[in-house]
Amino acid sequence: MSYFTPHIEAMTPYVPGEQPAGGEPVIKLNTNENPCPPSPGVQACLQSAAMESLRVYPDPRAGQFLRAVAKLHDLPDGWVLAGNGSDNLIMMIVRAAAAPDDRIAWPAPTFPFYETQALIQQARPCPVPSGEDFTFPLQGLIDAKARITFLANPNSPTGTTASNDQLHALAEALQPHGLLVIDEAYADFARSDALNLPREQPNVIVLRTLSKGYSLAGLRLGYAVARPELLEGLWKTKEIYNVSALADRLGAAAIADQQHMRNNAASIRNARDRLADALKQRRWRMIPSEANFLLAGPPDGNAERAYLGLKERRILVRYFKHPRLQNWLRITVGTDEQNHALLDALDEMNTTP
Amino acid sequence: MSYFTPHIEAMTPYVPGEQPAGGEPVIKLNTNENPCPPSPGVQACLQSAAMESLRVYPDPRAGQFLRAVAKLHDLPDGWVLAGNGSDNLIMMIVRAAAAPDDRIAWPAPTFPFYETQALIQQARPCPVPSGEDFTFPLQGLIDAKARITFLANPNSPTGTTASNDQLHALAEALQPHGLLVIDEAYADFARSDALNLPREQPNVIVLRTLSKGYSLAGLRLGYAVARPELLEGLWKTKEIYNVSALADRLGAAAIADQQHMRNNAASIRNARDRLADALKQRRWRMIPSEANFLLAGPPDGNAERAYLGLKERRILVRYFKHPRLQNWLRITVGTDEQNHALLDALDEMNTTP
Repeated sequence: MSYFTPHIEAMTPYVPGEQPAGGEPVIKLNTNENPCPPSPGVQACLQSAAMESLRVYPDPRAGQFLRAVAKLHDLPDGWVLAGNGSDNLIMMIVRAAAAPDDRIAWPAPTFPFYETQALIQQARPCPVPSGEDFTFPLQGLIDAKARITFLANPNSPTGTTASNDQLHALAEALQPHGLLVIDEAYADFARSDALNLPREQPNVIVLRTLSKGYSLAGLRLGYAVARPELLEGLWKTKEIYNVSALADRLGAAAIADQQHMRNNAASIRNARDRLADALKQRRWRMIPSEANFLLAGPPDGNAERAYLGLKERRILVRYFKHPRLQNWLRITVGTDEQNHALLDALDEMNTTP
Repeated sequence: MSYFTPHIEAMTPYVPGEQPAGGEPVIKLNTNENPCPPSPGVQACLQSAAMESLRVYPDPRAGQFLRAVAKLHDLPDGWVLAGNGSDNLIMMIVRAAAAPDDRIAWPAPTFPFYETQALIQQARPCPVPSGEDFTFPLQGLIDAKARITFLANPNSPTGTTASNDQLHALAEALQPHGLLVIDEAYADFARSDALNLPREQPNVIVLRTLSKGYSLAGLRLGYAVARPELLEGLWKTKEIYNVSALADRLGAAAIADQQHMRNNAASIRNARDRLADALKQRRWRMIPSEANFLLAGPPDGNAERAYLGLKERRILVRYFKHPRLQNWLRITVGTDEQNHALLDALDEMNTTP
């Protein structure tokens, strides 16, 4: 006797990265947040936010934010849709495009929320194993012929990327029935992006978030770029007022300050490369990363021990129980001070086993 | 050739109440917002909000807000779930409990978003016609034996209510397979509420929002009260971080200031009753309302003409093309000044046809 459908009863909920209990000082390198503060323009916008904008319903289209995004990427009207974080956009896409038993594919391992959404929708999850060192499984994704293919690019937790040629080939192969969703949560830290692909291909949706490059994970704001005829389907599955009045305004202010975002992203890329070198010197295995984190394997392969040792020293990194990831840790690139503290802790663990 | 499922292709999107174009001064009595400002505590909380809380991910459970709500209603741990507005909670419920072809029922006419969600889920919409003068169709809802029964109480757009005895009887009749969702968006303006029903019945979820009583429609925040075993199913269909860090904090501040909310709600109830009397004096038909709006019918029955006449005079009210509502307008109770402007406009329209 249950009030829920059997497939919901059977599923386990998504488990987010652990949040330290309030008051305990920890170095948090486990959920890929940006160590730099948001743009001062966001702060100014927050301080001046009128209570009147909270009293009334927000613009259901989040127009201020959409206009800022359209201007940034030089997109015509109707090519952008805002979401309460990328989670919200992923949910809209799955509800609009996947019937029960439709295939939803992704390269595995990746962001587990695609699978969560597939299970909620009673769609058929098609994880396509990535290659050795987590290379992009282009042919496997083509062969899966899924109704929706989710592609985090750069991928999490591996930091690896698919090339634009590969994305192009995949988009073509999936037509005329398969959507290709390129989740560019980490694109602000990468060498290239696929924002032009929706102009060239009718079945591509690119997702962006303000959680990473713009240091606004707490605000909950993301957007989808696609042809208007694709976004029309998503508008139907959108909650009426999915983006708050504050997110609409603060998001527009963040997008307007590209200099701040680019400077932060550049400093994180530099810190990432220095941290990768330092770990390599300590004989850690490294997957080349284009994101704001590193997938790194300790010399003895015992990632769980390293995770627990760091946690004991109040440094949180991410350890996944996934079979392909048991020898690896995902380490968010922090401030120089945090990255040094991490290396010091590893050195200490090494000398006092 | 479409990238969306046929039922999504076939459906029309939800249309929210019209938003005046920026810069044009209008009196907006069409979307049931609260004319009073939010609590000063919310403003103080916003002014002091740290950028650090925007930089990192929010608490996925919105713990500050949940604790404030649990304290307010004297609920044990695990009885409250937060949503990005009630829309978000309604979506979670439908995804957790309705399989394709399951029945979802509501008294008609009501908030159209229940039907939107039923259609997205490919469930079977079961609108149960309310009685004459929109009385609560208890037997019809019992006979519908739906998997989910949505009940806005007070109902929108009618302002009518079901009694606690009726709710109790319906909850019992729907067991052991049917959920009863009591959407109390307007309960802060009503004489009673059903917050005790989840303690007494295993299949009841009560929804609340901060959009109406707390004057925070722009913030996007609502909550569900139900037994922990019911909320467990909903947690599974929740987006990972559905409530922003700002909503978590500002919502807690708003809930903490009950005096502000109660004073505002009392003044709106008084204004509502005065407005109803004034309209009755002008020979309008009135449905007794326990919400912050009135369903009122012009003496000549031509509601569309009254709607357009008011719009010409820059006063927005809500006119629905629903067959049962074509002789009625839904008028949000505004400030005394706004309500007088409405009456003056009606008098003017009456003398200059």
